[in-house]
Amino acid sequence: MVLLEFSMSPLNKGDSVSQYVARSIDIIDRSGLDYRLHAMGTIIEGEIDEVLAVLKACLEAMAADCDRITCSAKLDYRAGYSGRLQTKVDSVEQKLGRRVKTLGSASSEQDS
Amino acid sequence: MVLLEFSMSPLNKGDSVSQYVARSIDIIDRSGLDYRLHAMGTIIEGEIDEVLAVLKACLEAMAADCDRITCSAKLDYRAGYSGRLQTKVDSVEQKLGRRVKTLGSASSEQDS
Amino acid sequence: MVLLEFSMSPLNKGDSVSQYVARSIDIIDRSGLDYRLHAMGTIIEGEIDEVLAVLKACLEAMAADCDRITCSAKLDYRAGYSGRLQTKVDSVEQKLGRRVKTLGSASSEQDS
Amino acid sequence: MVLLEFSMSPLNKGDSVSQYVARSIDIIDRSGLDYRLHAMGTIIEGEIDEVLAVLKACLEAMAADCDRITCSAKLDYRAGYSGRLQTKVDSVEQKLGRRVKTLGSASSEQDS
Repeated sequence: MVLLEFSMSPLNKGDSVSQYVARSIDIIDRSGLDYRLHAMGTIIEGEIDEVLAVLKACLEAMAADCDRITCSAKLDYRAGYSGRLQTKVDSVEQKLGRRVKTLGSASSEQDS
Repeated sequence: MVLLEFSMSPLNKGDSVSQYVARSIDIIDRSGLDYRLHAMGTIIEGEIDEVLAVLKACLEAMAADCDRITCSAKLDYRAGYSGRLQTKVDSVEQKLGRRVKTLGSASSEQDS
Repeated sequence: MVLLEFSMSPLNKGDSVSQYVARSIDIIDRSGLDYRLHAMGTIIEGEIDEVLAVLKACLEAMAADCDRITCSAKLDYRAGYSGRLQTKVDSVEQKLGRRVKTLGSASSEQDS
Repeated sequence: MVLLEFSMSPLNKGDSVSQYVARSIDIIDRSGLDYRLHAMGTIIEGEIDEVLAVLKACLEAMAADCDRITCSAKLDYRAGYSGRLQTKVDSVEQKLGRRVKTLGSASSEQDS
């Protein structure tokens, strides 16, 4: 299993690209892989073939109506590990000995 | 204001680097800037001088006992905007017309 | 066609990772795709399936004897364009009206 | 000393951004730091303060007339090392036992 984080934007569609990002998130959400959306991209977890297939699907969907696309990505592989979308964050808080502003905690403060 | 996302790891300290990441998060947490930790890095929001000073402080702290460090980062600048750690995510969900797995929602499911 | 730039390193093999990078370059060199190696990664040009297949092959080769791997990557898609490993650099120099330190010019100074 | 590789583009200026990239390269070229331009970004070498100052200068110059800017960057720190723009490439070729397509070799083939 790997974690793949990526962000993908058209270069020629103006200041706001959230409608294009929303289309990518729709593809990711329907892929069945576990994922988390945040302000600078989306992290998905799966086998290497699975995550690269989602990346490719997002690029092809965006290329249907965008002539220039930039995408930055990061892969994190750790032999024998999975479920790391949350455990990597827990491990840092545990080493620190206190809770910090993870996307979870900050959002639930706002929701309450 | 800018959003800076970065992840920083030593290359010569074995499989698990969470203790070194925890030290960086401690620096970020004490910086006073708004931030969110997630599984592939941390996003901070501030003026360019502020966010680069935090990045430098993390690098210098890690270089105190790590001889090889790799760091990847992303900057997102949008004139006249701030508070984007949450509004960028909200904007995508609003375009999609439904809530998706943001770090907030996923975590509060687990916490409840 | 897309440009894919990536760098891939094991996290648990000490300060120097060039032997592992060399194995990736061997895979890239034998792939038949056009590419350029530089100090912070390698840029390859091909169809999306081709470049992702090379990325996957490098990850699987490294995972054979490395338990933790980090990889950062960037994709640049521009409809209707190819041969961009050199033309993107030429276009910047042409806009500047002078030659600057591209990896080419700097190296040939050293070789002469 | 660190190596900083970055690429910086406006999101709202159309398909071609080379004129904006050229302005950044002008700033880098005049900074006095050693650097190499390639198809996916520019690598500069210097002390952390020096390289972050150049990154900031490029962002501020681009923000003068671009309302949305995306930048991805990578830092590589290795205690006690410098001159790595070329030595990192040489080390990989030396491990491989043959020359490969580095930006230098490929360009000099074209120039000859």
